[in-house]
Amino acid sequence: MKYKLINGQLLLRDNGNYTVEQQDLYVKDGKIVAIGALKDDADFTVVDAKDRLIMPGLINSHGHLYMTTFRGIADDVDFNEWLFERIMPTENKMTPDEAYNSCMLGCMEMIQSGTTSFLDMHMFAGQSARAATETGLRAFIGRCIVGDDLHTDAKARFDELLTEQEAFESDRIRFMVMPHAIYTCSEQLLRQLDEEAKSRKMLKHIHMSESDTEIENCLKEQGKTPMAYLRDIGFMDEMTSMAHCVKLTDEDIAIIAKSGATVVTNPASNCKLGNGFARIHDLKEAGVNVALGTDSTASNNTLNMFREMGVLTLIHKGIHKDSTVLPAAYVLDTATANAARAFGMTGRLGEIKVGAYADLVFVDLNAPSLFPNNNIVGSLCYSANGSEVDSVMIDGKFVYKNREFLTIDREQVLYNIKKDR
Amino acid sequence: MKYKLINGQLLLRDNGNYTVEQQDLYVKDGKIVAIGALKDDADFTVVDAKDRLIMPGLINSHGHLYMTTFRGIADDVDFNEWLFERIMPTENKMTPDEAYNSCMLGCMEMIQSGTTSFLDMHMFAGQSARAATETGLRAFIGRCIVGDDLHTDAKARFDELLTEQEAFESDRIRFMVMPHAIYTCSEQLLRQLDEEAKSRKMLKHIHMSESDTEIENCLKEQGKTPMAYLRDIGFMDEMTSMAHCVKLTDEDIAIIAKSGATVVTNPASNCKLGNGFARIHDLKEAGVNVALGTDSTASNNTLNMFREMGVLTLIHKGIHKDSTVLPAAYVLDTATANAARAFGMTGRLGEIKVGAYADLVFVDLNAPSLFPNNNIVGSLCYSANGSEVDSVMIDGKFVYKNREFLTIDREQVLYNIKKDR
Repeated sequence: MKYKLINGQLLLRDNGNYTVEQQDLYVKDGKIVAIGALKDDADFTVVDAKDRLIMPGLINSHGHLYMTTFRGIADDVDFNEWLFERIMPTENKMTPDEAYNSCMLGCMEMIQSGTTSFLDMHMFAGQSARAATETGLRAFIGRCIVGDDLHTDAKARFDELLTEQEAFESDRIRFMVMPHAIYTCSEQLLRQLDEEAKSRKMLKHIHMSESDTEIENCLKEQGKTPMAYLRDIGFMDEMTSMAHCVKLTDEDIAIIAKSGATVVTNPASNCKLGNGFARIHDLKEAGVNVALGTDSTASNNTLNMFREMGVLTLIHKGIHKDSTVLPAAYVLDTATANAARAFGMTGRLGEIKVGAYADLVFVDLNAPSLFPNNNIVGSLCYSANGSEVDSVMIDGKFVYKNREFLTIDREQVLYNIKKDR
Repeated sequence: MKYKLINGQLLLRDNGNYTVEQQDLYVKDGKIVAIGALKDDADFTVVDAKDRLIMPGLINSHGHLYMTTFRGIADDVDFNEWLFERIMPTENKMTPDEAYNSCMLGCMEMIQSGTTSFLDMHMFAGQSARAATETGLRAFIGRCIVGDDLHTDAKARFDELLTEQEAFESDRIRFMVMPHAIYTCSEQLLRQLDEEAKSRKMLKHIHMSESDTEIENCLKEQGKTPMAYLRDIGFMDEMTSMAHCVKLTDEDIAIIAKSGATVVTNPASNCKLGNGFARIHDLKEAGVNVALGTDSTASNNTLNMFREMGVLTLIHKGIHKDSTVLPAAYVLDTATANAARAFGMTGRLGEIKVGAYADLVFVDLNAPSLFPNNNIVGSLCYSANGSEVDSVMIDGKFVYKNREFLTIDREQVLYNIKKDR
């Protein structure tokens, strides 16, 4: 399909600054092909975006989509009960079909709240890829890997990743190498996975420095912080994104800045599980690329990136007692352009630019929560709740239009989940 | 109108514990008259609430509704710029009609996100009362009072309050005595207002202990904290609710607990303006009644109480590094039953009970953000964004049904605000 989007207010980004301009936007073959005017537009389908902000789709840079149906099974309990008594038993009983249904529910929630790309660390990577394929979401998916040795205990999971990569990888669905964490993977396995990622030119993702226990154990066992340990193994580079990074020393921050790796912060999850506040203002000042994720609904409990943007900036203004830290444009970057940078896709993703993927979110500027539109970037961070999203286009195709899902049978997804219970 | 609500899931509260039960609910003359069954229900209009949670309407216990159109005019700036360069100049230019339109916009946002009652400290109290009268919202309104002496400089504002009270007060719209703060009212004026409130049996509301500057100045001038000062004046009692209370000593907390006054916390506003985090967990442990408010859109920037509940619990779990503090049921109480207690309306407001006002919110249990309904109270705090609200009844009348406003002409409100700009 070719689209000519008229009368919309485009949210454009230049050198980190956002402007809103009413211009026509042309979409062809999944990409933005022109902004303003295009000579031969006779066969473009015209879509009227009056009173709509057209913004880049949000990018959720950390999550576990198979856990979406776990929403609410472990609220207000301590971490050990959360993991060992609630999450793991539920996880262990899960079938691939249940995982697929759970992923579909997550896709619904993400699309409806303006997310067009997600990173997914998964037990059932194939089911996540299947859901992304069907729903039209852009995805960066990895099989969560744990163990000692890629040739023995970790082999099956890595082989599964490669099989799923072969089955599902496309321009829209990319696979990544995702060791779970330094405390669930041996040094040997981390080195092996790093080597595999490098030779296959695959991106890497890992949980890092999430809890006090993790740091204490690493200091005891390795004599250094998790960040120093990961750097010394050679795993931390521009191809690496690291979820959480809640507990960092000044030296850790310098290590990350030097490496070019991305920190993916998950403020709601870090709060909800009692892990505390990450040092995002300090990471920003050190020049570290910071992206934003929701983590799973088991620890958040929503996949709504508008909520996550609000929580990110509010808690840091509170911590620093400074209303100017993490301003709205920066926070929006963490959910768009910074994520694109983490995926090596600057200029092609997370921004409205000629040549970029047509991953576009249409926001109702007349929604009471955004009105009047005194400062739209501010409103996206501080007052939007996600329900202002009216339509969503991914890869040049509408997946949600006038609040109706076009690629998902909503009733079927709900039915499938209800019948499993 | 008389209503028989069938097939709904009622959110019932007993001794601070919530349960969900499918039962019929009967509404007559603005009140809940029966739960379960009623003999003579032949002339009750049946409303099918299948797949809906029927919960008590949320209560926003602190705000300034005339500022709703200020949303976004002062993001990411320091407090002095916020107040003196952005807010006050805008406020000074405002006409009563503009204030009314701004109130109507706020009423729309509140109703749409499940708020049925609001407390409003206002420059244009009459316009707020007018908006509440028309939209059907329940309101607790006061003219914001500053100055030295009720017989001289503060007289005009207090007289205005009494005039507006006479014009608008009803069972649904109550007026309160609202000195702005200890640093904008003299001790004499606070004593005079306390006396007026007591003789008229009116509730009292005041901003307290919001910023470091306020505390420092009070310590310097009075030789005691703002809380000790307010207690010593005699202003602090069961009829008093105090907004913010961000900066409290242990002794302050003991003073409040002893007084029976309510603390109204505004976590998003306190963060956004850089005032920091209130000690809500400690207040809770000390037995202080805590209610929840959004403050105005100039410092939040939304009136969405679901967002506020999420922010409240997340930041406290983060501060205390403890996933068990401020559990969901407690947080829901701050937005319902605790607010009712502050207004002296326990059992009549903020709970679904026979004899209580029929202030009811219908929530779509199939919304992707709430599904599956593993723990509905948890989901209301941690994953709801307000858009799950499908219908709203206040005082036994539907004001919002199947996502349509019944008492507000949405287009007219937007038009009125646009034409003023």
